[in-house]
Amino acid sequence: MVTTRWNGNMSFEAKTPDGKVVLMDVPGTEGALGASPKVLLIVGLTGCTGMDTVSILEKMKVPKYEFRIEADYHSTEEHPKIYDRIHLRYYFHFEGEPPKDKVSKAVELSQTKYCGVSAMLKKAAEITYEILYE
Amino acid sequence: MVTTRWNGNMSFEAKTPDGKVVLMDVPGTEGALGASPKVLLIVGLTGCTGMDTVSILEKMKVPKYEFRIEADYHSTEEHPKIYDRIHLRYYFHFEGEPPKDKVSKAVELSQTKYCGVSAMLKKAAEITYEILYE
Repeated sequence: MVTTRWNGNMSFEAKTPDGKVVLMDVPGTEGALGASPKVLLIVGLTGCTGMDTVSILEKMKVPKYEFRIEADYHSTEEHPKIYDRIHLRYYFHFEGEPPKDKVSKAVELSQTKYCGVSAMLKKAAEITYEILYE
Repeated sequence: MVTTRWNGNMSFEAKTPDGKVVLMDVPGTEGALGASPKVLLIVGLTGCTGMDTVSILEKMKVPKYEFRIEADYHSTEEHPKIYDRIHLRYYFHFEGEPPKDKVSKAVELSQTKYCGVSAMLKKAAEITYEILYE
């Protein structure tokens, strides 16, 4: 169970089942401490597919690397305003030659089979992605 | 743009466009500091509909009250594991007689018209709700 308490103005404090606290607010308003609730969908998407990807690469015995995901998203104009397009950029940095086939396979498995957040958001948004090496 | 960096193990650190940091982890693992990425969808849902509700009640000149939302959710068993049922309990505490019609209207407007997170998640999950006074 998630419990979310109103703290006045647009400030909300959520507690997750394992006791983590997440603050939410309207970004840009004075004193806003938390994230936008809707942006948390994008945050969750990057975390979900990120965790899948590193788990699969670990099973594939892929050695040390750096990894981040950037997400762009587009919102509709009419209420209810939803994200109708989301684009993910998976950035990898390997010392030496990157194992591109394994990386592609890992990301693809996340997006097509494992990532529950992606599976849910795909019903509302077109999700595209690319893999980049730096 | 959301940028999410891998910090090793299952630890990810997201930065939102306005510079808020959200930590993600696998709950229950040793040293986990962050929330589950998927649970962030539920957190975002409560924040989104919570903000709508207090905004609409403010426009309706509803006076001071306390407010929280509890969310239960059910996950499917097969990959990709998604939430197929979400139930929200809106708890209100008013000094004196609660303006139940206005509260019902505000929550309904959020769920049917304004809440973009609800509109997105509804495409994957059945979302139900009830309003309680205490």
